[in-house]
Amino acid sequence: MVPHLTTALTGPLLSLEQSILDAQPRIEHWFRSRWQKHRAPFYASVDLRNAGFKLAPVDTNLFPGGFNNLNPDFLPLCVQATMSAVEKICPVAQRFLLIPENHTRNTFYLQNVAALTTILRQAGLNVRIGSLSPEIIAPTRLDLPDGNMLTLEPVRRVGDRLVLDGFDPCAILLNNDLSGGIPALLQDLDQFVIPPLHAGWATRRKSHHFAAYNRVADDFAKLLHIDPWLINPFFAQCGHVDFQGRQGEECLAAYVDEMLQDIAEKYREYGVAQEPFVIVKADAGTYGMGIMTVKDASEVQGLNRKQRNKMAVIKEGQEVHEVIIQEGVYTFESLNGAVAEPVIYMIDHFVVGGFYRVHTGRGQDENLNAPGMHFEPLAFQTACTLPDSSAAPDTPPNRFYAYGVVARLALLAAALELEGA
Amino acid sequence: MVPHLTTALTGPLLSLEQSILDAQPRIEHWFRSRWQKHRAPFYASVDLRNAGFKLAPVDTNLFPGGFNNLNPDFLPLCVQATMSAVEKICPVAQRFLLIPENHTRNTFYLQNVAALTTILRQAGLNVRIGSLSPEIIAPTRLDLPDGNMLTLEPVRRVGDRLVLDGFDPCAILLNNDLSGGIPALLQDLDQFVIPPLHAGWATRRKSHHFAAYNRVADDFAKLLHIDPWLINPFFAQCGHVDFQGRQGEECLAAYVDEMLQDIAEKYREYGVAQEPFVIVKADAGTYGMGIMTVKDASEVQGLNRKQRNKMAVIKEGQEVHEVIIQEGVYTFESLNGAVAEPVIYMIDHFVVGGFYRVHTGRGQDENLNAPGMHFEPLAFQTACTLPDSSAAPDTPPNRFYAYGVVARLALLAAALELEGA
Repeated sequence: MVPHLTTALTGPLLSLEQSILDAQPRIEHWFRSRWQKHRAPFYASVDLRNAGFKLAPVDTNLFPGGFNNLNPDFLPLCVQATMSAVEKICPVAQRFLLIPENHTRNTFYLQNVAALTTILRQAGLNVRIGSLSPEIIAPTRLDLPDGNMLTLEPVRRVGDRLVLDGFDPCAILLNNDLSGGIPALLQDLDQFVIPPLHAGWATRRKSHHFAAYNRVADDFAKLLHIDPWLINPFFAQCGHVDFQGRQGEECLAAYVDEMLQDIAEKYREYGVAQEPFVIVKADAGTYGMGIMTVKDASEVQGLNRKQRNKMAVIKEGQEVHEVIIQEGVYTFESLNGAVAEPVIYMIDHFVVGGFYRVHTGRGQDENLNAPGMHFEPLAFQTACTLPDSSAAPDTPPNRFYAYGVVARLALLAAALELEGA
Repeated sequence: MVPHLTTALTGPLLSLEQSILDAQPRIEHWFRSRWQKHRAPFYASVDLRNAGFKLAPVDTNLFPGGFNNLNPDFLPLCVQATMSAVEKICPVAQRFLLIPENHTRNTFYLQNVAALTTILRQAGLNVRIGSLSPEIIAPTRLDLPDGNMLTLEPVRRVGDRLVLDGFDPCAILLNNDLSGGIPALLQDLDQFVIPPLHAGWATRRKSHHFAAYNRVADDFAKLLHIDPWLINPFFAQCGHVDFQGRQGEECLAAYVDEMLQDIAEKYREYGVAQEPFVIVKADAGTYGMGIMTVKDASEVQGLNRKQRNKMAVIKEGQEVHEVIIQEGVYTFESLNGAVAEPVIYMIDHFVVGGFYRVHTGRGQDENLNAPGMHFEPLAFQTACTLPDSSAAPDTPPNRFYAYGVVARLALLAAALELEGA
């Protein structure tokens, strides 16, 4: 079962997918040369949007949840890629401490932690789960709806090391995006910390990521002789917004207006009949909090109290002062009438699977990853590494290959971003 | 469907499999440290024998055929491992010339070549197939029984490069074991030649491989606190045998006798009721030509003409003067009464799958890979990297994990062997 791509305008995308397919050996060679120079993050997931005329990443998560949503057939692929990642990043490590998010009552998330733990264990690591949550003061067993269980243990700092009772790990794997800041407990450890602390939302900015993505997309577009816009959404950053204090609205409105005009021009160039839109969201943070779909600059001026509250604060109560204005990319994939958005998973620089977020209650121009929002995950049935050059560019193996390529471009951008290059 | 392990004496093996299972993190850590120091061959397959009381490699093939016998579900695993291998050995390479064996009428073998070509292409390489066969004087299309087809092209030497018409490859991947010697065409090329020429049977010796395996098995046995004999067959080498001239028979008989006594002693120690046997085979070469099962030293003396002819010459008409005497390992796996022998496939240092050779016409003490011999391949249904510590040591995922571990020990021995260390 694969979502149907419903758009009157598949021409440019089919042509993009065909270019990607034709250039497969050149593309893989290009990636190989890039990964010789840049170290891929340990793991990542990338949200893509497929508009038929455009295929682009809209979010890159360096602390991916959702491993439980992958096809179980891909487990060996995850295990093998994890072995590669460990070899490159911390070959001597044998004991891994996994630090999850603090939401210990979200069973969807906890099933992700269980899936991740299984992958790491199958890769031959001793894994225990250490919680930063003040609620975890003793080893706590949590039973999961799928019959699995997890034990969360309280972490302690001993000198320069983070430990559990009877467990001195060689490496700390964060599955916690540090939205609330970097706890003192994690600072200046003499253990491997993966990903590095500056990958957390305490310091990371979406605008830095997409600045790096601009460079990657431009290089890649040159390789394929395509317009980089076909794989790259416009973005701009507003650094001094105070939604509660009603500061910076004019600056934001000006950016929105300019970007809507830029998109309209591209839509004219490619004959796209849809109405341009932009997404305004916090420059730091995740979980789709503080996100607006905007089709006219006036919509970001004179926000009412409810809208201001929604935009002003994201996860862990962090106030929003920096926002990113990103070109909205329509998602034209649907399954039984519900909107579908692909999410691609990578470990080391390998694509290890993906799934669709399938949504009945959202529009094609809305963010599909919002708090409290329920989606049905639809695991990819085939791997993203098996393009079939004898088949049409939009058959599932070829569509998935294109997804894997664009997701890896975002991964490469994340590598540059973390280097600060 | 998994072959049944039929033996009255599963005690020691279950204990070995349990040791392997319990030590999984230590084993993977140990392998990681070894692969930091030694480069795995590009690819390899290892024939294992599972006697219930003993699990050991009996042959390591550095030009593996049989990729067509693997479970198609493992294709993504093969592709990912190939990407790793290319990154390590020849990252800049984009065009691969695959050189197969010359038996262009063996459709089983040609299906292997097709499977291998698919793996390499999915990994993003431009692949063409160059034949050394004098019969191939123009591009020759061969249709395969499974509906696929292959094109073999004649290779040409231009200066220091091996080329096809319109194709100047960066790397030459040999799937030809060079039993007939190293053709001048392949010598002193300025392209990557994978595996190196000295991995071919023109120079390789089984006794060098098993000497390296002795060291690997001893190290590994120390790690697990087990008797290395449980994973290592005895072997000895006789360097000056002339079967036709009836020279060296006494030396051979003396080695055989001594080894049968050594095995008998081990069998007494472990309470094994079976009769010891040894395998006498050519020290160089493949395809199970020139192989004898021997249970008494007198059997290698006074061979009749037919036996002498069988032993004296192997593939490509090479005469045998060096033989290896190897402890015979019973295979106690069977499927519907037929004897089964596992073969494990590796690319880079990753186990990517395996299958059983299932044989109706052979005994538990016979070689299952002989010329003209027909076996039914039974692909492994699950990967070799998914041990289940909560299940019994002999459940399929755990048995396959043990197979993957022992096969990787043989792979490590091959790495040492190729280094000449």
